[in-house]
Amino acid sequence: MKSDLDRLMRERKLDAIVVTGGEEFNSARYYLSSGAQITHGSIFKRRDKPALLVCNRMELEEARKSGLDVKTDVELGYYDRLEETERDANRAAALHWSDVLRGLGLREGRVGLYGTWAINKTIALYRALQEQLPQYDFVVEEKSTLIEAAMLTKDADEIARLRSVAERTNQAMAVAWDAIADLRVDGEYLLDDAGRRMTIGDIKDLVRRELMARGLEDTNMIFAQGRDAGFPHSRGEADMPLRLGQSIVFDLFPRELGGGYHHDMTRTWCIGYAPPEVQAAYDTVMEVFDIAVEAYGLNKPTHLMQEAALDHFEAAGHATTRSDQGTMEGYLHSLGHGVGIEIHEGPSISHLRRDDIFQIGNVLTIEPGLYYPERGFGVRVEDLFIIDEKGELVSLTPFHKDLVIPLRQADGQLQ
Amino acid sequence: MKSDLDRLMRERKLDAIVVTGGEEFNSARYYLSSGAQITHGSIFKRRDKPALLVCNRMELEEARKSGLDVKTDVELGYYDRLEETERDANRAAALHWSDVLRGLGLREGRVGLYGTWAINKTIALYRALQEQLPQYDFVVEEKSTLIEAAMLTKDADEIARLRSVAERTNQAMAVAWDAIADLRVDGEYLLDDAGRRMTIGDIKDLVRRELMARGLEDTNMIFAQGRDAGFPHSRGEADMPLRLGQSIVFDLFPRELGGGYHHDMTRTWCIGYAPPEVQAAYDTVMEVFDIAVEAYGLNKPTHLMQEAALDHFEAAGHATTRSDQGTMEGYLHSLGHGVGIEIHEGPSISHLRRDDIFQIGNVLTIEPGLYYPERGFGVRVEDLFIIDEKGELVSLTPFHKDLVIPLRQADGQLQ
Repeated sequence: MKSDLDRLMRERKLDAIVVTGGEEFNSARYYLSSGAQITHGSIFKRRDKPALLVCNRMELEEARKSGLDVKTDVELGYYDRLEETERDANRAAALHWSDVLRGLGLREGRVGLYGTWAINKTIALYRALQEQLPQYDFVVEEKSTLIEAAMLTKDADEIARLRSVAERTNQAMAVAWDAIADLRVDGEYLLDDAGRRMTIGDIKDLVRRELMARGLEDTNMIFAQGRDAGFPHSRGEADMPLRLGQSIVFDLFPRELGGGYHHDMTRTWCIGYAPPEVQAAYDTVMEVFDIAVEAYGLNKPTHLMQEAALDHFEAAGHATTRSDQGTMEGYLHSLGHGVGIEIHEGPSISHLRRDDIFQIGNVLTIEPGLYYPERGFGVRVEDLFIIDEKGELVSLTPFHKDLVIPLRQADGQLQ
Repeated sequence: MKSDLDRLMRERKLDAIVVTGGEEFNSARYYLSSGAQITHGSIFKRRDKPALLVCNRMELEEARKSGLDVKTDVELGYYDRLEETERDANRAAALHWSDVLRGLGLREGRVGLYGTWAINKTIALYRALQEQLPQYDFVVEEKSTLIEAAMLTKDADEIARLRSVAERTNQAMAVAWDAIADLRVDGEYLLDDAGRRMTIGDIKDLVRRELMARGLEDTNMIFAQGRDAGFPHSRGEADMPLRLGQSIVFDLFPRELGGGYHHDMTRTWCIGYAPPEVQAAYDTVMEVFDIAVEAYGLNKPTHLMQEAALDHFEAAGHATTRSDQGTMEGYLHSLGHGVGIEIHEGPSISHLRRDDIFQIGNVLTIEPGLYYPERGFGVRVEDLFIIDEKGELVSLTPFHKDLVIPLRQADGQLQ
């Protein structure tokens, strides 16, 4: 968690860290600035010292909401450096960084680099830093960065926000279930009260409105029906009508409005009835879900949970990416991932990454799935869990996992 | 525009370009893939050849919507390279890139790099590319990249989308105006029909709903009142009540749902009445707005328009960043910028950048402003313009620019 930063800097022998970037959403900047709504600015932190946010003057008031020390680039002489270098933005930035680091009392040492930026800008700045500032060793952590390591475990404030986002996301999903359950049958299609044939786009619109009414924003939910459900990350076609008996993978992963913490949950639904092969796949996925939760243990390597899932899927006759690397059918992804400011954080529950262990403060998904696009269906079920202070794995996703949405107006006329 | 890519590659002596990145919104990838909803994948294009999108198997169906040639990383042997390098993701990626480029018939040459990614990942990949693939010269364009140069001018499809987003954004702003005009006065505050005191958060919620109902998403609008309006990029406080006679800077810049083209417009409003100093600043800003439009000329350098604005602001007694680099009052920013998939694109209308000229197909803002936080107000007025096929500067922002919102229920009882 954030309070681990100084310890992590010591372990990684970093004298300072710098988070920078452009207007893109920047999870490291969001994290260190406590969500300040800035689109420029860099954060400089020496080990065991408070962080300094250097902002553009236009964003001074937003920058102050970070709770960090704040100075504008103007007052720190950036524009003088820009003139001095005849408007060479990269050389000017390097000299400006040197001014800031010296101002923080650091004349040499190891400086970690973090953030998100355009690829060309990152490389150009990195070159300029290396050329202009030989007194600093700019360190790039290729695997898990210090920021990612801090984000691996959430503190009490973060858990409270994640719980709140979870509650609101579950409510929005419940509204969607109820709205579908109230539809009328028309052949294999579904009609609303006005007799309009309902589409995936209609359900997505409803869910977006329900999220927004709760202070959340959709980040491109998956509501994929039939063959589309057989591709794990197909989003679903807005103009496709809802159909009876098709599997629908509904993966909802909104975040706080304007950027912030996410929830992540998936349910698989069949409207009216489930075809036997979908029911069978669903039953297997639910068995694996339970096996995964059973396989949990504090401080245990996460890859063992994925291996338990792989064992069961393979024993049940499904291809996996372990049994057949190139497969397009069966179980195609990792069992889970951490969730926070980014939708995919650490730890990973994968057989391909063996460094992670389950720790108190982890917030992570468990999401087994089976995919058969050529047979026209897919199934995935996902809850978000926290590992609480007692080391217990606790679901934040209470919404029920029923497969079939019974139609309230159907009177048993289906199937 | 996109059809210029091969010409730009020739001019820049690039044999191929690669767009890559992570899950972050990636405007270069969005642009080249025609908005395919993918969160992984890289695009490889040789000069004068069709582009190839290499995707993750989970996103195959979404990737196909790009209209590009599509292959999965599995079928191109990425996982074999990963095993061969003992899971060194950067070395594996470098070898995979070499496989792809050779598959496209390119055995050596200059390859431009584009996209958006985590800073540590970019640098690690770049190092691996340089070490592993000496046969290619990976080119980083430090200033305006080839992609940015293409995006400078919009084609007919892009203009049609920008026009549609403009229309819908203007509608949402009109709803906000009308909602405020219908409020009741209670001292210096405003009440809705239910007698509730209206806040900035209420107006923002209304606008977000109105945008969403039109297929647009807010990207963190500015609705900043009083002193906050005096900082160009203060977002405004959600719990601050609306007040009579305060300047409100309302800068609305939504985009198509899920990422896409933006509109960008700003109005300054005073509810009920305008204090004389706000009216005077508004009048000056409108004079500069008109001067800027007058200063337009096809193929003219854009900085001349900013200089015309600076001349007038300074003659009217206001500080500018030209007359006083460190000023926190007066006219503090550039006069405008291009708008497209990113909210800030080229060309820039700034006295600090002298390379841009006005060209057919530009879509750009004109947005003079004055900021006096210590006097408790700010003013900005912004339209989005296109330069049409005849070379004429045409506003996409028809909403009126009135400063004062008259209260329909007030009967002249104000001031």
